[in-house]
Amino acid sequence: MINPNIPDSSFPRVVIIGAGFAGINLVKTLRRKPFQVVLINQNNYHLFQPLLYQVATAGLEPSSIAFPIRGIFSHKENFIFRLAEVMQINTENNYVETNIGEIHYDYLVIATGSTGNYFGNSHFEELGHGMKSLYEAVGLRNFGLRGLENALLLTNVEEKKEALNIVIVGGGPTGVELAGALAEFRKTIFPKDYPELSPDMMTIHLIEGSPKLLLNMSPEASAHTFKYLTRMGVQIRLNAKVEDYDGRHVFLGDGTSITTKYFIWSAGVKGNMPPGLNPEVIERNSRIKVNEYNQVQGFTNVFAIGDVAQMTTDARYLKGHPMLAQVAIQQGKNLGRNLINLRKNKPLSVFLYKDKGTMATIGRNKAVADIGKLHVTGFFAWVIWMTVHLMFLMGFRNKVIVFINWVYSYFTYERGTRILLKRH
Amino acid sequence: MINPNIPDSSFPRVVIIGAGFAGINLVKTLRRKPFQVVLINQNNYHLFQPLLYQVATAGLEPSSIAFPIRGIFSHKENFIFRLAEVMQINTENNYVETNIGEIHYDYLVIATGSTGNYFGNSHFEELGHGMKSLYEAVGLRNFGLRGLENALLLTNVEEKKEALNIVIVGGGPTGVELAGALAEFRKTIFPKDYPELSPDMMTIHLIEGSPKLLLNMSPEASAHTFKYLTRMGVQIRLNAKVEDYDGRHVFLGDGTSITTKYFIWSAGVKGNMPPGLNPEVIERNSRIKVNEYNQVQGFTNVFAIGDVAQMTTDARYLKGHPMLAQVAIQQGKNLGRNLINLRKNKPLSVFLYKDKGTMATIGRNKAVADIGKLHVTGFFAWVIWMTVHLMFLMGFRNKVIVFINWVYSYFTYERGTRILLKRH
Repeated sequence: MINPNIPDSSFPRVVIIGAGFAGINLVKTLRRKPFQVVLINQNNYHLFQPLLYQVATAGLEPSSIAFPIRGIFSHKENFIFRLAEVMQINTENNYVETNIGEIHYDYLVIATGSTGNYFGNSHFEELGHGMKSLYEAVGLRNFGLRGLENALLLTNVEEKKEALNIVIVGGGPTGVELAGALAEFRKTIFPKDYPELSPDMMTIHLIEGSPKLLLNMSPEASAHTFKYLTRMGVQIRLNAKVEDYDGRHVFLGDGTSITTKYFIWSAGVKGNMPPGLNPEVIERNSRIKVNEYNQVQGFTNVFAIGDVAQMTTDARYLKGHPMLAQVAIQQGKNLGRNLINLRKNKPLSVFLYKDKGTMATIGRNKAVADIGKLHVTGFFAWVIWMTVHLMFLMGFRNKVIVFINWVYSYFTYERGTRILLKRH
Repeated sequence: MINPNIPDSSFPRVVIIGAGFAGINLVKTLRRKPFQVVLINQNNYHLFQPLLYQVATAGLEPSSIAFPIRGIFSHKENFIFRLAEVMQINTENNYVETNIGEIHYDYLVIATGSTGNYFGNSHFEELGHGMKSLYEAVGLRNFGLRGLENALLLTNVEEKKEALNIVIVGGGPTGVELAGALAEFRKTIFPKDYPELSPDMMTIHLIEGSPKLLLNMSPEASAHTFKYLTRMGVQIRLNAKVEDYDGRHVFLGDGTSITTKYFIWSAGVKGNMPPGLNPEVIERNSRIKVNEYNQVQGFTNVFAIGDVAQMTTDARYLKGHPMLAQVAIQQGKNLGRNLINLRKNKPLSVFLYKDKGTMATIGRNKAVADIGKLHVTGFFAWVIWMTVHLMFLMGFRNKVIVFINWVYSYFTYERGTRILLKRH
């Protein structure tokens, strides 16, 4: 049998599932504290998800936005990392069942993030492309580059146009940023690299079910985003419902359809719940109900933080906090302090989210940011966006390499990583 | 039916198979000349093979050593690129059969490079790892990183040692550089990232059939390489023959065996011959016999250049030129000039290889270089090696990013790209 081979420790063991913003910040807070920290993740890296769309559009390399977990916590005592997948949580007997064996815990922290919500239609998941993992982003890059090569072989203009149609479902940050990046690819790379095709053969559709883009941002941000994307030639449909996708046709609620093989689903997220918890503590959106200390209902030693946690105790966020990196970071840190308090028999401190603002980038010199009551757009917002993302990106090497890629793209209008890594 | 969809041109068409050093330099020489140039390659990028071992050992990202072909020749008139695989060459009817249809030519240039030579033992190919493509290098990186994670799960020291054995067959440049990079990984990354394992559990074996490493270099270079690698803890066996590999045991000619799952074959190369040529023009090592103008025997309009060409007309290279980037570059350029001469009815110029030296790097501050009668070793050779490789690496962005990765690794003893990109 496989054995997780985790040594015994005189300290209580905290098992953390997930190395996203929440999990990583929790581990950092527990540095040199009297705990044995066991971090379980299904990848050996921490992923900086906000820049995933730049990997998908050949602007950045996977390793620029992924940082090896062992590198983050090297030389750390009482820290154990295991590359593993969780099969089941057993809260009765305090262990996690994984593909490498059972891992017992004294405290369990579920920080498994979110995953695409397909609202029960398996076609969207199976026939379309998601944008939640590095694997999916690289897959989308390869799929797009190969699609362009294939379009060259067609002799009929109508066929070419059909082959170059892109449909993005969901006008949230991922959909908006992806649509903007693809519009820039069409404008700058397309005429240089594919002189046999014409940029106007490629149509980028962005479909949103609600009456506005970036639903969670200010009306100013939404309006500017709409204006920017429209100017960049993106076909936006608001209040539009996608009924189905059959691998070639996207069927919309108004009876029309769009023909495309390049179908990206970014219309919803839900909690990425590991099995085993009592169904009563799971909300409809697969998030886990937690109290103001991120404790899962009915437990004192089981916690959920980040996207997967739904805390409704704050009057400002009665439907739970938005699924944002900042919430995850702050919850990870607060829980770290609370675990230390628990050991010292001190009272726990309530989690209070400090909103540092939200932002999205649409393209070159174009971004929108809501910072408190301030609404910034255009070049200034774009500079803020870049600065903040470089600040939060982990690792000095990654910061420098992302910065150079951005400077390079800015001045040359090139995208350096449009290589098609062949699978055999 | 698929159609390569290549427009007609008033210029004669040169079809080039392969976008390695030979093919790329030929295309460059034909820029703005009266030819329609059609380049066929099975990847959409030009690969800088000399740094492949750094991708395999998590020092560089794939896109740092791969340059998109469309980016190299953007805006170029009369240039057509097709991502395609060649099935068969038909010299009787002057066309190339590919997976995207038939491509007719007036002049054909075969620049398909070299591939691993397994000397008829399919076990080496099927059960071991090659080091000739970007796909193989990334595969080796993933395999190695996963192997380390798996070794952690073992509880028995002997089992761990077995799981951490590495066997590299072939003491040429690839084998030597890979062994050196792995020895550095063991020394610098291992103690930091895998405190649960001990560096002395990992053994790196380098097996060479001849009496010395780097057979094609000077005795000074070979001796220094042996000394460097031995000091770095690599177990070198000279005059050793590998008889077989069964997926777990490497069987040597002296009756001993080594247990390993990490088996790298870099013991031989042969011409990467597309089918369809008359067997009489193919040498035993699968290279194509060419005359002093790189013309394939029996043709005036079919050429072979680079690794796949065997030219025996130069008294200095009666067994053909070494398979080196410099030979390929110079043959590509010479053929370009000769094609222009052909069109002008001028006499062709004989290819004469100008040896600019050979070099290999073993590790930090350690390299060997033969430049004419000069033999340089140590730190100075290492600086030359880095400078030359940066010079020949294509693209300003790639040069800067490789340089930064090297500087970063030099000062931090880190390797930035050790991420395990998961396949589903």
